[in-house]
Amino acid sequence: MAVYTAVPAEALATFLADYNQGDLVSAKGIAEGVENTNYLVETTRDRFILTLYEKRVAAGDLPFFLDLLDHLAAKGLPVPPALTGRDGRAVRELAGRPACLIRFLPGVSLSAPTPSQALAAGDAMGAMHRAAADFPGHRANSMGAEAWAPLLARCGRDLDAIAPGLYDDLSAAVEHVLAEWPADMDAQVIHADLFPDNVLMLGDRVTGLIDFYFACTDLRLYDLAVAHTAWSFDAGGRTYDVDVANALTAGYERYHPLLPTERTAFRTLAAGACVRFALSRAWDWLNTPADALVTRKDPLAYMRRLRHYAPALGSRTA
Amino acid sequence: MAVYTAVPAEALATFLADYNQGDLVSAKGIAEGVENTNYLVETTRDRFILTLYEKRVAAGDLPFFLDLLDHLAAKGLPVPPALTGRDGRAVRELAGRPACLIRFLPGVSLSAPTPSQALAAGDAMGAMHRAAADFPGHRANSMGAEAWAPLLARCGRDLDAIAPGLYDDLSAAVEHVLAEWPADMDAQVIHADLFPDNVLMLGDRVTGLIDFYFACTDLRLYDLAVAHTAWSFDAGGRTYDVDVANALTAGYERYHPLLPTERTAFRTLAAGACVRFALSRAWDWLNTPADALVTRKDPLAYMRRLRHYAPALGSRTA
Repeated sequence: MAVYTAVPAEALATFLADYNQGDLVSAKGIAEGVENTNYLVETTRDRFILTLYEKRVAAGDLPFFLDLLDHLAAKGLPVPPALTGRDGRAVRELAGRPACLIRFLPGVSLSAPTPSQALAAGDAMGAMHRAAADFPGHRANSMGAEAWAPLLARCGRDLDAIAPGLYDDLSAAVEHVLAEWPADMDAQVIHADLFPDNVLMLGDRVTGLIDFYFACTDLRLYDLAVAHTAWSFDAGGRTYDVDVANALTAGYERYHPLLPTERTAFRTLAAGACVRFALSRAWDWLNTPADALVTRKDPLAYMRRLRHYAPALGSRTA
Repeated sequence: MAVYTAVPAEALATFLADYNQGDLVSAKGIAEGVENTNYLVETTRDRFILTLYEKRVAAGDLPFFLDLLDHLAAKGLPVPPALTGRDGRAVRELAGRPACLIRFLPGVSLSAPTPSQALAAGDAMGAMHRAAADFPGHRANSMGAEAWAPLLARCGRDLDAIAPGLYDDLSAAVEHVLAEWPADMDAQVIHADLFPDNVLMLGDRVTGLIDFYFACTDLRLYDLAVAHTAWSFDAGGRTYDVDVANALTAGYERYHPLLPTERTAFRTLAAGACVRFALSRAWDWLNTPADALVTRKDPLAYMRRLRHYAPALGSRTA
C-alpha cells in the first residue's frame, strides 16, 4: 500500500520503448496493492498500471499469477492481463524489480457496498470461479488452514499485548476450526482475497477484479467465505448487514448453488477466514511500528466477525 | 508523500456532485506532495488531482496558496488552479479535511534533467516570478533565514548521531551564511521548493509547476538558489553538473538577468539553501523512525552541496 520503489521517469520512458504502447505522458505512484509498487502510467496511447513486484511476491510465483490473469481475461472476465512487449515477454526488469505493464481499468473500490453491489460482486466471483475451474496452474495457499497453527505459534504470547486473551482466543479458534474443516469439498484456483478493495465497480456494475497476488489452489467455497467476512460487516466488524451478506451469496449462487452440505460447512469456512485475517493482521501489528505510515489493520475487527460465525469463540477479545 | 487520509468512494462521489465536472469513474491515492493526501480522480468529463490538506498545511494559509495558483494560472503559467464548485467555493470538507479539486496536468518529474530541460525550468521560474511580482498576498517563510538558528538549537547535539561533527558544521554554516546574507535584494512571492519533483515536463517542455505549499515572501533570487542546489547535483550531492547549473541560470536570466551584486551574493543564497535543506532533513531524520515507510532524505547530501558553494564550510561531515 505504498510506493516502495521509486522509478525514475527516464527509466520508465526506456521501459515503455519495449512496448508498442506510445510515449510516456504521466506517471504517478499509487497507494494500491499487496506490498507491490504500482504506478498509474499514461502514454500517448492509453493508460496502464505498472506493477513492480517487491520481495513479498516470490518471483517463482509470477508465471502462475500472470497465466491466471491471461486465462481469465481470455474468457471475458474483467481482469486486466499483463501486456507483452515487442519481444513477447510480459515481465521485464525496471528499477531492479520484476515489472509488468497492465491495462488500466475504470471503476472504484467501495467502502460501504449496497446489496445490489454485493449481488454483482458475488456474481462476478461465481463467473470467475467457473472461468478458473479449468486453469491448469497450481499454487499452495501460503495463508491456508495448514498455516494458521504455525503462524499462531510464531506470534505466541505477544498477541496478548494487542488484547489480553488474544492468544487463548486464537488458539481455541484455530483448534475448533481445524477440527471442523471440511475434507471433501471442491478445490480449484481461487482469488482468496476478494475484499471490496479488490473489486472495481461503477454503480452496480463490476468493472474489474484485481490484485490476484494471493490467488492459490484451495476450497472453492472458501473464497466466498473470505468475501463474506469482508463485505458483510462495517470495518470494525461490529455491524453485520444481512442484506449485503445474502445478496453476495445469491449472486454467487447464480453460478454455483450451494449444496446442503456446503451450506452447513459455510460457517466453519467463514470462521476460518476470520482466523486467517485476525492472525495475519496480528502478525503485521506486532511487526509494524506504531508510527509507521502504513495503517495497521485491527486484528480485533476480525475477532468480532469470528463471533458472528462461531458465537462460542473469541469471547475474551471480541 | 503518502495517503494519510482514506477517502471512501461514496464520499468522493458526493463531493464531486458539488462540481459541474461529471461523475466519478476512478480514484487512486497517489504518493505525491508535501505531506498532503492526493488522489488522481477521473470523472466522465476529465481528470483531476484531489488534495486533502493535512495538519502540516495551516488552514489559515490556504487562501494565500489558492489565490496564488489562481493568479499564476490567470497569467497563463502552467499552474493548475483549484476548481470552484456550484457554490463558487474552491475549498470544501472531505473526510474531515479541507479539500480542493485541481485540474490534472500531464508531464513527469525528472530524476536526471539535461541542460536543455534545466534551461526550460529556469525559464519557467523566471516567467513565474514575473507573473507573481504583482501578487498582493504575503506569507512569511517559515523555513527562511530567521528560522535556521532556532531549528538548529532544537536539533541540538542530537545532530551528531547522524554524523559526528554535524552540529558544529551546521552551527558554523548558519553563522557564516547569516553574516553574509544580503540585506537589500528584491523580495516577492516565490515558490521556495522548485526541485525537479515539482516541475512536470514532457521532453524539454515544462507542462506544470506544482506543489506551491512552501510558497512565501522572500528574496526572489533565493528561489533560483534553492533550485540551483536541487537541479545541479546528483541525489547524493557528490557530482556537480556545471552544464545543467549554467542552463538553469541562463533560462532564468531570460526574465531576470542577474546584476553584478546578485551574482556575488548568489553563493551565499545557495549556501543558505543548503543549510535550510540540511537542517529540515536532519530534523526529519531525528524525528522519523528508521523503519517508517517514508524514505528519510539524507541531510549529508546537502552538506556536500554546501561545500560546493562555500568550500570552507561543512568540512567535518561532507
